[in-house]
Amino acid sequence: MLRPVKNYETTTNVSLEMIIFAILDMHWTNEHITWQPDDFCGMKTILVPADILWKPDLIIPEMTETYKDSQSPYLKLFYGGYVQCWKPQVLVTACKMQVHKFPFDMQTCNISFRSITHTDEELNLKAIFNSTEATKWSHDYMDTQYEWLFINITTTERIFDYFDINQSMIVYTITMKRRSVLYSFNFLLPILFFLCLDFASFLISDNGGEKLSFKITVLLAVTVLQIILNEILPSSSDRAPLIVVYCVGVFGFMLLSLLETIVVMYLMEKDSESRDNEADRDRSLNEDSGNKHGEAKFNCNGAFETSV
Amino acid sequence: MLRPVKNYETTTNVSLEMIIFAILDMHWTNEHITWQPDDFCGMKTILVPADILWKPDLIIPEMTETYKDSQSPYLKLFYGGYVQCWKPQVLVTACKMQVHKFPFDMQTCNISFRSITHTDEELNLKAIFNSTEATKWSHDYMDTQYEWLFINITTTERIFDYFDINQSMIVYTITMKRRSVLYSFNFLLPILFFLCLDFASFLISDNGGEKLSFKITVLLAVTVLQIILNEILPSSSDRAPLIVVYCVGVFGFMLLSLLETIVVMYLMEKDSESRDNEADRDRSLNEDSGNKHGEAKFNCNGAFETSV
Amino acid sequence: MLRPVKNYETTTNVSLEMIIFAILDMHWTNEHITWQPDDFCGMKTILVPADILWKPDLIIPEMTETYKDSQSPYLKLFYGGYVQCWKPQVLVTACKMQVHKFPFDMQTCNISFRSITHTDEELNLKAIFNSTEATKWSHDYMDTQYEWLFINITTTERIFDYFDINQSMIVYTITMKRRSVLYSFNFLLPILFFLCLDFASFLISDNGGEKLSFKITVLLAVTVLQIILNEILPSSSDRAPLIVVYCVGVFGFMLLSLLETIVVMYLMEKDSESRDNEADRDRSLNEDSGNKHGEAKFNCNGAFETSV
Amino acid sequence: MLRPVKNYETTTNVSLEMIIFAILDMHWTNEHITWQPDDFCGMKTILVPADILWKPDLIIPEMTETYKDSQSPYLKLFYGGYVQCWKPQVLVTACKMQVHKFPFDMQTCNISFRSITHTDEELNLKAIFNSTEATKWSHDYMDTQYEWLFINITTTERIFDYFDINQSMIVYTITMKRRSVLYSFNFLLPILFFLCLDFASFLISDNGGEKLSFKITVLLAVTVLQIILNEILPSSSDRAPLIVVYCVGVFGFMLLSLLETIVVMYLMEKDSESRDNEADRDRSLNEDSGNKHGEAKFNCNGAFETSV
Amino acid sequence: MLRPVKNYETTTNVSLEMIIFAILDMHWTNEHITWQPDDFCGMKTILVPADILWKPDLIIPEMTETYKDSQSPYLKLFYGGYVQCWKPQVLVTACKMQVHKFPFDMQTCNISFRSITHTDEELNLKAIFNSTEATKWSHDYMDTQYEWLFINITTTERIFDYFDINQSMIVYTITMKRRSVLYSFNFLLPILFFLCLDFASFLISDNGGEKLSFKITVLLAVTVLQIILNEILPSSSDRAPLIVVYCVGVFGFMLLSLLETIVVMYLMEKDSESRDNEADRDRSLNEDSGNKHGEAKFNCNGAFETSV
Repeated sequence: MLRPVKNYETTTNVSLEMIIFAILDMHWTNEHITWQPDDFCGMKTILVPADILWKPDLIIPEMTETYKDSQSPYLKLFYGGYVQCWKPQVLVTACKMQVHKFPFDMQTCNISFRSITHTDEELNLKAIFNSTEATKWSHDYMDTQYEWLFINITTTERIFDYFDINQSMIVYTITMKRRSVLYSFNFLLPILFFLCLDFASFLISDNGGEKLSFKITVLLAVTVLQIILNEILPSSSDRAPLIVVYCVGVFGFMLLSLLETIVVMYLMEKDSESRDNEADRDRSLNEDSGNKHGEAKFNCNGAFETSV
Repeated sequence: MLRPVKNYETTTNVSLEMIIFAILDMHWTNEHITWQPDDFCGMKTILVPADILWKPDLIIPEMTETYKDSQSPYLKLFYGGYVQCWKPQVLVTACKMQVHKFPFDMQTCNISFRSITHTDEELNLKAIFNSTEATKWSHDYMDTQYEWLFINITTTERIFDYFDINQSMIVYTITMKRRSVLYSFNFLLPILFFLCLDFASFLISDNGGEKLSFKITVLLAVTVLQIILNEILPSSSDRAPLIVVYCVGVFGFMLLSLLETIVVMYLMEKDSESRDNEADRDRSLNEDSGNKHGEAKFNCNGAFETSV
Repeated sequence: MLRPVKNYETTTNVSLEMIIFAILDMHWTNEHITWQPDDFCGMKTILVPADILWKPDLIIPEMTETYKDSQSPYLKLFYGGYVQCWKPQVLVTACKMQVHKFPFDMQTCNISFRSITHTDEELNLKAIFNSTEATKWSHDYMDTQYEWLFINITTTERIFDYFDINQSMIVYTITMKRRSVLYSFNFLLPILFFLCLDFASFLISDNGGEKLSFKITVLLAVTVLQIILNEILPSSSDRAPLIVVYCVGVFGFMLLSLLETIVVMYLMEKDSESRDNEADRDRSLNEDSGNKHGEAKFNCNGAFETSV
Repeated sequence: MLRPVKNYETTTNVSLEMIIFAILDMHWTNEHITWQPDDFCGMKTILVPADILWKPDLIIPEMTETYKDSQSPYLKLFYGGYVQCWKPQVLVTACKMQVHKFPFDMQTCNISFRSITHTDEELNLKAIFNSTEATKWSHDYMDTQYEWLFINITTTERIFDYFDINQSMIVYTITMKRRSVLYSFNFLLPILFFLCLDFASFLISDNGGEKLSFKITVLLAVTVLQIILNEILPSSSDRAPLIVVYCVGVFGFMLLSLLETIVVMYLMEKDSESRDNEADRDRSLNEDSGNKHGEAKFNCNGAFETSV
Repeated sequence: MLRPVKNYETTTNVSLEMIIFAILDMHWTNEHITWQPDDFCGMKTILVPADILWKPDLIIPEMTETYKDSQSPYLKLFYGGYVQCWKPQVLVTACKMQVHKFPFDMQTCNISFRSITHTDEELNLKAIFNSTEATKWSHDYMDTQYEWLFINITTTERIFDYFDINQSMIVYTITMKRRSVLYSFNFLLPILFFLCLDFASFLISDNGGEKLSFKITVLLAVTVLQIILNEILPSSSDRAPLIVVYCVGVFGFMLLSLLETIVVMYLMEKDSESRDNEADRDRSLNEDSGNKHGEAKFNCNGAFETSV
């Protein structure tokens, strides 16, 4: 069960490969990602029960949760002293998301492997496949992808300075693209449609109440759509994502055009009132000179302009 | 605990059967499926504690989670050397969904069995039942189905090339149909109803404000229904599902008819204004020639046409 | 640890009782039910550590999940050779729901006990209490019920044919009734209220735009209520539940009455227009014969009828 | 590992205390409560590994789930033969809720301790603190409370008759009060505001359409608020909670006042029509006697009263 | 496995450091926080299997849940007798939140370490880093933060009086700031916009129905936005948070202005009616003196003022 070296200073090489089988979910609520990588550690063959041999104490620092992984109870022992083990795992890893370009964003997530206790002099990690091979194999075996489209995987071997202890580390960087078609159809397009409606409302006559009622109903519909936005977008960045700027912009524009309508209506009314007053003054002058029929005409007009 | 063969090159045959007892859920949120298959591995009888015998290290690659399975602590040993074990399990498997025809879609999900470490020369998997028998038995024992209706199950034995190592593999393909009646009643029908209303609104008189107010309220109701769509449909495909196209189509049609109404109202108003102006011109001509009563008539008309 | 019989063909009798302590939840989302039954298996007394004795390998096929059950580490050994064990468990079982009469539905769920490996000749299950006693005891000990009201429990001993092997099985059938008062007040009543409003709207004058605006707002309110229905009802049956038929019926009725209103308004307008035209024709005839005051009257009328 | 008594009939006394550290949540969805009590069982000191001593097999019947509790691997052995153990636990217990006075309700939840297998003659449970002390200590150590305000804790020792076996039992009854301020502001107040608006609408002139449109919009807003109520209130009682009665009462009142408005409008219209008809009859009488100007006046009036 | 001291009264010093790697979530629903601290306990080097040595029985009292932590199976033994162990953990801790200034709030959460059974004379905890160093290191290694921005970490060593037993305790106080930008854009801004609209509505003419309809629609939109508030804010304090006061204030203001509008409209109508009656009286006086044309004028005016 101790590190299988004759000389204490010999470095043990551990070859390691990870193939991604599925990107299950990248959920907003708890901000975790479920992975299904299949990593195997070592190389060639006789099976021995897994408990009786030393195994490297590798961890994945980004991992926050792991579902019961079905590790084989056997290791394969090869004639050259190589030991091979398989460990299919379903992982949940923490991953920093950049939602600024949501829903047209790409995300890169790291899955690193390092020993908990061994320094790089004791344990040296080596990736079996380079980035191109790993991407190719992952594309071949990947069969389940949901919202996220796997783009590629990059392998980096590096030395990690952990409180002045050097440790060997392999970092797999996975690049994914969000499938944005549903967000476009269900959210961006309706907002755009309502913006068109708001533009079109400039054609509606200013002096009827229906323009006001129309514009405020459009604004209400945009407010209803914002409930959806609130549910799909997390509060994880310091800058407002572009989609929020877009929404608030549309909202603000509609608001301004609504205010403009109210002011125009107000001015038109004032104007007509002052003209009425003028007419009234004229009329009172005319009154003296008689002509009842003319008076009837003007009164009728004035009443209409204020009534609706 | 080693593979129970005298000669290292003898292939061990493992007979295997899976019966599905219930399709519990196919949840959108985490895109997993909960299965309750009952697989047993081997055939005929004496019970021995399960720990003291070699068991094949079978895994289900699609499985992402498994609830505490109640494996019997005993194996049944038969006189011919056959060993029989039962393992009722509740599985969650990853399954690629095709939501294009939602809610009238059928889904096929695979549940595969393969050894983690053994090649096909060491371990050979054989299905006990063929597809017809497996379907029949599953139909017999299945008693709980929710949203998904079990159609059939197909058994395929194949050799799987896993990084140049051949492995014996049995793939059960389960075909299911979604129960669409509730989606039809709660979503498709209301949308259709609102589309009818929008058509009917062509009968409403163009020169009153109520047509505009009616159409925008119908559009608001369709927006409210889209919140439901957003909750039931995942963003897991590159093409927009038909139901989204249907929704956006209805939405777009309503928008166009609304824009048309606004333009028609605008033109009618322009038209009436120009006629008014003409009348005014006529009137100013008539003014000179007297006849106050005629003037009263025209003014009254003009005021009404712009007022509502 | 083997079955404690001297003669291999002796059948072991296992007495079994289940008391339900609480019906915790019957959740829509994942369609599981959480039970808290307390089953104990065997009868009379000396406590021995539980690991050193043979225990029947009973399973509950309907169970999909079980929370960490606090099985006593001791068994009670009685002088007659009887062994008694307790196993308080919190279970989640799969249960086929009939939501057709929702929210006035009753549900029956089974909890069965059978051995995984033993035939009925080896292991024979016997219920300690009959249905009446079990119901009485469950009522006595039950203290927590939420949405579901426990009605009774039925005990059935039967022989289960499992792939041509006969197994002894005890089925407890639990009958529950849903508490419907909240659904009635929060959903059925508002829908009914809105239906009344729709009926009442027949009293509103047809030739004003307010009838149309009133009816479409009522329809919008019913649409908002349908979001609630969508959240509380699962898509688990082939027929539409009665509550959905009720909703869609109300919705459809309102739609028809709205269409009727639109058509009536359209016909009234057509009618008034044709009368206007007639009047215009009459007028043009009268025009020649003079009388300006009469003309003023008719024009005024016509303008009003089309304006609102 | 057996009960540490020399004589079989000696009763073992177990002293027990529970301090509540936090009331984490009392969630509606699954109706569980998460507790963080800290119970320790026994009294004074030498630490021995916990596995090698007999421990009482205590269970908490109300517990439905327990998070991985960090029991110390050591027990403290005191010179007098006392054994002390600590067991900080996070519990989820089932608790019958009385939501009738929601959101101004108080809840009492029990946490009981009893042995699974021992009778009261074998095992006797004793509470270390009385109710006052337990309340005081809990108030001292409690630092995290969310929606629920801890009031007090009551300790009761009693003999529990479990299928004719007497068992010693300690019941801790925890009384909590809901923090209702947010529910008042976010739900009760808006409903009240809308009720005020509905009252105020009596001032709006009956013969314009805006009263109807105003009242139906207020009703729509109350319907939107009912979605919130539906989300926060469970269906767990046979009587409708007061808040639901309040809501439905307000809703019903608004409905009645709306119906009254419709009827009044209808009667006013009928009245004006009949007066119109009378006027028409009068007019037709006058017609013969001439006077065109009077006719013009009456027609104008009639048209206005029906138009809006 | 006993405490590794020669003399029973020697105090064992345990040096301890915690670095925070990620603040995963501070979720409303269950009020837990997921941490990913990396604590290691002790200092310098030979690896021995972790089971064979005494380890301090440290617990974190605030912890309510812990995900499967990947503790190294080895401890590092240093020549001076120091033992070093690593324990990367994902924790969920209970934390008292102050939501009064939501969404511009800062939260401080404690993570304490203390022994379950040892007194401060037996076990003495010492922090390796002081507050400044711990903050610096946490900032360096922290790579994943979502809604919460890590500010700093404070280390406090103190003696904790636990039922008259003194225990050594280290408290790490973590200060975090909420990222409020999304809440501002999606909630505060729209509310403010609607308040502006309500102010602007003072410009709309009082004697038309559109003012009333406009204001009630704005109020409806604010009600829709309150659904969002209800979802993001917990009911965990006795005072109403400022954001709720803000909302209810805006709501109340809109309500008052709406009531004022209704009253003004009522008074205007009353006024015009009384003037009408006066006019009628005047008219009835004039009636005697003839002049039919003047009568037509006054009637026309009165009808208009009440009609809309």
